[in-house]
Amino acid sequence: MTECFPPEAQSQDLFLGGRLRLAQPREGYRAAADPVLLAAACSARPGQAVLELGCGVGVASLCLGSRVPGLSLSGLELQPAYAALARQNAATTGIAFEVHTGDLREMPPALRGSFDHVIANPPYFTAEGGTAARDAGRETAQREDTPLSDWILAARKRLHPGGYLTMINSADRLPDILAGCNGFGAITVLPLAPREGRAANRVIVQARKGAKGAFRLLAPLIMHEGAVHGGDRESYAPLARSVLREGAALAVFG
Amino acid sequence: MTECFPPEAQSQDLFLGGRLRLAQPREGYRAAADPVLLAAACSARPGQAVLELGCGVGVASLCLGSRVPGLSLSGLELQPAYAALARQNAATTGIAFEVHTGDLREMPPALRGSFDHVIANPPYFTAEGGTAARDAGRETAQREDTPLSDWILAARKRLHPGGYLTMINSADRLPDILAGCNGFGAITVLPLAPREGRAANRVIVQARKGAKGAFRLLAPLIMHEGAVHGGDRESYAPLARSVLREGAALAVFG
Repeated sequence: MTECFPPEAQSQDLFLGGRLRLAQPREGYRAAADPVLLAAACSARPGQAVLELGCGVGVASLCLGSRVPGLSLSGLELQPAYAALARQNAATTGIAFEVHTGDLREMPPALRGSFDHVIANPPYFTAEGGTAARDAGRETAQREDTPLSDWILAARKRLHPGGYLTMINSADRLPDILAGCNGFGAITVLPLAPREGRAANRVIVQARKGAKGAFRLLAPLIMHEGAVHGGDRESYAPLARSVLREGAALAVFG
Repeated sequence: MTECFPPEAQSQDLFLGGRLRLAQPREGYRAAADPVLLAAACSARPGQAVLELGCGVGVASLCLGSRVPGLSLSGLELQPAYAALARQNAATTGIAFEVHTGDLREMPPALRGSFDHVIANPPYFTAEGGTAARDAGRETAQREDTPLSDWILAARKRLHPGGYLTMINSADRLPDILAGCNGFGAITVLPLAPREGRAANRVIVQARKGAKGAFRLLAPLIMHEGAVHGGDRESYAPLARSVLREGAALAVFG
């Protein structure tokens, strides 16, 4: 992989019902609903500092910046070509978003400050699980090299006391996430289910550094209406649609 | 507390829509829906051996024996007076259920065999949490003295390879349960929510000894219909009612 994606290797994709137009690699890791849902679950308020670990091309942070004005947004991305697209996306959207290239296990000095919120959408597959992606960048974005517990530890180090970590991941990783949440409390899990009555395929986990509150397992967010996929018709359930198409917040984390 | 509850200290309570009439202490720990749901979630088949850890007066095991004929049912209970009532309940219902008094950390020799299923409804409150019950027996039944991880370890020791542990507990203990599940796989969580859209207040967790399957977070079982409590009217949702009033299995663990 070269250190950047040339224009012909990029696609321009619409998010938040067209509010955001972001460049992504045509081949490689391509963001879909997950970073948009992650941004919606982060309750950052104007003036707060937010760090995204593993920001890719910046979809989550830019969705958050689109919803909440006046944030100080920072991102860390391991793969230089994705970080470069994230900077390009920040420039084209006009949302202030400072992107650093580096490894969360060796945090760049510029990011060693303290944040109100950390958000992350880490790789979903373990080193052993799943099928390898043909594209090397996509493989890096999807497959865990850094254990989830290291992501959570990096987040804890960067948060103010009382600051919030918000993560989205595959539902089958929930035990690993909870096992990594040492030093956090008030852990709240929002299951995301593709349809009513189905098992969760994603979880959004929010945890507060140093808090004492009890663990909570919320009612699932149902993504699609109806029992089966409606072919080409968009079948998002109303709450999911308001998040994905209108940029609404996911206000279920209280 | 004496070593048994005299008849005047007992109440006779109906379970499974009147299919089971069981004696419980008037004062003390009194079973409600939870052990009935636990029994419904256990997929034991005729001829299999089932051990209940902390069986109290035997509600879960006797509900299970009422649904599935030909089981070999054993129970362990720390408090002698509850164990005595469990034996009395086995006798009056005519369901074969062998109850031993003892501590799960020092398993009685008679229970050191190997089982197809272990079921448990451990205390919901940690040593620090909640408010002390006035009744000493109820306090013992509700407050954790033995950590949840010891319950799970005792279950693992008693299960065949591939055998199933099924537990019900307060939803806020899910992280502790998952942290204790070393040596188990195919962990499946059924959240129980009082009403549609509400956070779970209970979880049923099923785990298979030595299995490799992925963690699954199922759609919640909604206990009651409607947005508010319907006063004296029973408002169980259809699936919950079929379990609690008709003795149906909870077939969602597949």
